[in-house]
Amino acid sequence: MYLYLNGEIRDGKDVNISPFDRGFQFSDGVYEVIRYYPSIFFELQAHINRLKYSLKEIGIPAPPLEEIAPILSDLISKNDLKDHPSIVYIQISRGYQYPRRHAFVNSGSPTFFISVEKFSANREAMMNGVCAGLEEDIRWHRCDIKSTSLIPNVLSSQRAGSKGYAEIIYHRNGFITEGAHTNICFVKNNSLITPPLSNFILAGITRKIVLEICAKTGIIYSEENVPVGRVKDFDEILLLGTTTEITPVIEIDGVKVNSGIPGPVCRTLQSEYRKLY
Amino acid sequence: MYLYLNGEIRDGKDVNISPFDRGFQFSDGVYEVIRYYPSIFFELQAHINRLKYSLKEIGIPAPPLEEIAPILSDLISKNDLKDHPSIVYIQISRGYQYPRRHAFVNSGSPTFFISVEKFSANREAMMNGVCAGLEEDIRWHRCDIKSTSLIPNVLSSQRAGSKGYAEIIYHRNGFITEGAHTNICFVKNNSLITPPLSNFILAGITRKIVLEICAKTGIIYSEENVPVGRVKDFDEILLLGTTTEITPVIEIDGVKVNSGIPGPVCRTLQSEYRKLY
Repeated sequence: MYLYLNGEIRDGKDVNISPFDRGFQFSDGVYEVIRYYPSIFFELQAHINRLKYSLKEIGIPAPPLEEIAPILSDLISKNDLKDHPSIVYIQISRGYQYPRRHAFVNSGSPTFFISVEKFSANREAMMNGVCAGLEEDIRWHRCDIKSTSLIPNVLSSQRAGSKGYAEIIYHRNGFITEGAHTNICFVKNNSLITPPLSNFILAGITRKIVLEICAKTGIIYSEENVPVGRVKDFDEILLLGTTTEITPVIEIDGVKVNSGIPGPVCRTLQSEYRKLY
Repeated sequence: MYLYLNGEIRDGKDVNISPFDRGFQFSDGVYEVIRYYPSIFFELQAHINRLKYSLKEIGIPAPPLEEIAPILSDLISKNDLKDHPSIVYIQISRGYQYPRRHAFVNSGSPTFFISVEKFSANREAMMNGVCAGLEEDIRWHRCDIKSTSLIPNVLSSQRAGSKGYAEIIYHRNGFITEGAHTNICFVKNNSLITPPLSNFILAGITRKIVLEICAKTGIIYSEENVPVGRVKDFDEILLLGTTTEITPVIEIDGVKVNSGIPGPVCRTLQSEYRKLY
């Protein structure tokens, strides 16, 4: 496996980071996950824009991200993935700092790491739907930053897996926010509702695309807060994300969503989404 | 510099971790900082107990931590720090996992890292006091776990430094919780008040010792929530922590605490604390 680190693509066994990297000691960094469909990096500009936003919000000077496309192509080629659907993982941390102190010195040497991996989305989940659970959202209040401070998401994902759920859906102050690694939207009477962008949710790129599809296809949509108690009243519930794409939820905490079968708005959105890549 | 990693003490230049370490990609790990005063590791058992608690809460099987004392001594010796006050930094992450997924597989191979560093506490700050600022506590809701999900603490510490503050004091839901890297206590009419232990604050070891000193010396104390609006009414405000020890706050957001001079309860606690090491 070939990996990119700080300007070089090298054999993975030669790619290491320091235990004094602030990404390791302080989760002082941000990341992106991008889909590769031969031969395009899907929504690359949107991912770069979000990465820049995350970097700005935590005060890491951005490396020259406009030059990333040839690096990604090179990495895909070197890993023999040119003809395979894959995912790109990009992580930028504030880099090495010794001695360890909370406050940072921007050395101008962030750690810039990229890996690629053969990846196929879970078509069975998209077709038949998944089960999910509800949990209180106990994450920090800057979920708009795609930071590597992911321990609450990790623990939720683990609990989800132990119950056979594909996702945990969070609620905070009585309202649905998003999933542990997805955005969420709801359908009632063929209209789509999704929580508005705020510091409590990530500005999802799949979410953005879904709203664009709604506009194009005439599906009425609104961005508004959904009380957690209302979850059981919806006709359809959909998880949205780069790897999740558009996946219907058919059961929440053991209770069926509507009749427990993916609905027509889901199918319209999925079919329009697939035309895009 | 010699470092400990996974059973071995080695020259620092040979000590690296994988970019696929979950400590790097997910802040999936916990840590402790311990003071070394020649020749004792101060409150070692309390730190080990807290490390075990943190590990348990995030589901990382604990390595045999009862055998850590000789490793620490060895590391201190190899770094020629036997005769120097130092700090020990211990970090345990869930270790390497590929491919990257939120949910984890406990491989039985956590990453167990220890470094030591010559360190002297800031006596001038303890003597003359420091300035601090108030901020809303936007961290996750499990601050009782000493996890490496420290990005909010990092950003607060950076803002503190830019204003000449030694610390940011957090409040949540209208009540003081703790500092970005300290616990906090207040003094009114020679009685000490500190927020009660909960999921919103770390069970500080210096905090515990201070309450023990109160009990021993007859200082009345209580563990109760302090409304943020009451902060300006106190006679003394103290920051407590392993590296901070007992440091008086003389100004908050530019407003003097009482007359802006460290008070008598601070001096009693400091003098009793110094007898312990």
